Amino acid sequence: MKNPVITPTREVRIFCAASCVGHDEKKGPLGDCFDLHDDKDTFGQKTWEGSESEMQRLALNAALAKAKLKSEDIDLLLAGDLLNQCIGSSFGLLSFQIPYLGLYGACSTAAESILLASLLCGGGYVKRAAAVTSSHNCSAERQFRYPIEYGGQRTPTSQWTVTGSGAFLLENAASGGSGSVQVAQVMPGRAIDKGITDANNMGAAMAPAALDTLDRYFRATGTAPSDFDLILTGDLGREGSKILRDLCAAAGFPIDSVHSDCGLLIYPPDSAGADKHAGGSGCGCSAVVLASHILPQLEKGILRDILFIGTGALMNPMSIQQGNSIPSIAHLVRLTSVQDIN
Amino acid sequence: MKNPVITPTREVRIFCAASCVGHDEKKGPLGDCFDLHDDKDTFGQKTWEGSESEMQRLALNAALAKAKLKSEDIDLLLAGDLLNQCIGSSFGLLSFQIPYLGLYGACSTAAESILLASLLCGGGYVKRAAAVTSSHNCSAERQFRYPIEYGGQRTPTSQWTVTGSGAFLLENAASGGSGSVQVAQVMPGRAIDKGITDANNMGAAMAPAALDTLDRYFRATGTAPSDFDLILTGDLGREGSKILRDLCAAAGFPIDSVHSDCGLLIYPPDSAGADKHAGGSGCGCSAVVLASHILPQLEKGILRDILFIGTGALMNPMSIQQGNSIPSIAHLVRLTSVQDIN
Repeated sequence: MKNPVITPTREVRIFCAASCVGHDEKKGPLGDCFDLHDDKDTFGQKTWEGSESEMQRLALNAALAKAKLKSEDIDLLLAGDLLNQCIGSSFGLLSFQIPYLGLYGACSTAAESILLASLLCGGGYVKRAAAVTSSHNCSAERQFRYPIEYGGQRTPTSQWTVTGSGAFLLENAASGGSGSVQVAQVMPGRAIDKGITDANNMGAAMAPAALDTLDRYFRATGTAPSDFDLILTGDLGREGSKILRDLCAAAGFPIDSVHSDCGLLIYPPDSAGADKHAGGSGCGCSAVVLASHILPQLEKGILRDILFIGTGALMNPMSIQQGNSIPSIAHLVRLTSVQDIN
Repeated sequence: MKNPVITPTREVRIFCAASCVGHDEKKGPLGDCFDLHDDKDTFGQKTWEGSESEMQRLALNAALAKAKLKSEDIDLLLAGDLLNQCIGSSFGLLSFQIPYLGLYGACSTAAESILLASLLCGGGYVKRAAAVTSSHNCSAERQFRYPIEYGGQRTPTSQWTVTGSGAFLLENAASGGSGSVQVAQVMPGRAIDKGITDANNMGAAMAPAALDTLDRYFRATGTAPSDFDLILTGDLGREGSKILRDLCAAAGFPIDSVHSDCGLLIYPPDSAGADKHAGGSGCGCSAVVLASHILPQLEKGILRDILFIGTGALMNPMSIQQGNSIPSIAHLVRLTSVQDIN
């Protein structure tokens, strides 16, 4: 493929977003940004899986309410989560009755859903699309590791699955979209496997995928890290972020001065008593940080041009038990502030 | 949404397809159609999950070989399967190093992947895309029900997960695509839940989703069942097909004379000793039947205008254990023979 970077045919805006989080996320440094939260993490449901679905419903509901739209105003839902067979999304979004395409990109799904929504809106296929993703610490722990009641010891490189859901509404600007954040370009990632087999070190598995995506993007566009206000990775955490910065420096494009990671932004460090070890992870991590902390800065023009790189580890517990290493992926979305462009 | 039907902006063709199946599928009535098979169902791998991944690799490899293309000639992969976290696709397609977007639509994923590939090729975003899906009876049985060694008794309404993978190559006709099967229109399905809780009767859960999609399509386009040579559902099986036909007749558009179902085509009836009960199911079912039995008839102009409706049940074993009913979805792809159009 000569140029893997794709530009939506018509201008596409993220015109509204909303987030819904649990107790620990609300108490974290970004707590004030989030739209909805539940201190008990249950969201009134009897099962953790039900709680995760309810977060998706609440996040999309909140986004629609903020935009003063009804579900019939949205032409297409693009959604996914980490649960087996993506039941967080299928149950959570059932009541909206919007045509629905399910995605699986592990923790990169927020970026994947925005990427596809922007191309479909930009191609004139749909007027408005919603991109929704979630993760829940308790449903993820018992599915991927141990039930939380077991009290399993966590390694220093392990990350903490964020309890949260983010919903983004996108619209083709030609059809009246009034948002001030534009999806300027997107680039799908490739699955990359560098042989990491430690399921408690997802950051190390995902960092090479982020490097591959950044390297291909910079080559294809002739840009460099300094051209951007921010290079925001999804959930590499402390370990993966350090590895990515080292890899980028070795590849000749150091990113230290512009790099940040949603998994590092959402919780305080362990030295402040957070017990989150290497930081946040999960589909919900990058979704809620982007929706509620980063987008407002783009809307105000505080940030003008950023690369958002959703990172995901494409494994499951059985693939690890069978001795396989962890393929990872990183999808890129370039977001610009329309304040700056006009 | 005023009109949920979407037409690719430029003409898009499925210019090549290939399939890879297991023992029982090869011995079935369509056995001669399939490109590759392994009588032992292992495809030389040590685990059933590895076998499923290997089928995806073989199917895409075969499609590329038939088209005389290399992996770098394909701009984008759209793929998915039934395994937790879609590891069939991520491991199976890793070696191609093609930008990859993972999908989850349960057994509707073949239709979902063709739908998205046609819109992205038709929008001019990519020149060529590949849509790949799979299921494997042994990996699905142990994940969704019991390991096959357990010998669990199956109910009469239960379906048999097909061991198979199908790969489709799509190209925008303006960029030189020479195939003779056009993706004329597509329509994403809505998640529909009519309260079915019996995980051994997926046909009953999925039939109402197929009805919803057909009903919306006929209303939006002003067409009727008699306008098509074939209305092909993915894997409703015997039980679900009967329910869909009854539902369509009650809704005023009987489909009996043009309806067929991939799950009914792939195996002989139990009266002939097949032991497949209500028929085939799984992502691989509609993928291999479409790729190797239906597409050749469109290529030759024997079929001229068909509706392919991928059906999927969006549950997992835990959602069933927690007492939830089974939301389902049906994505529509209208395929026409270019022989007829020109």
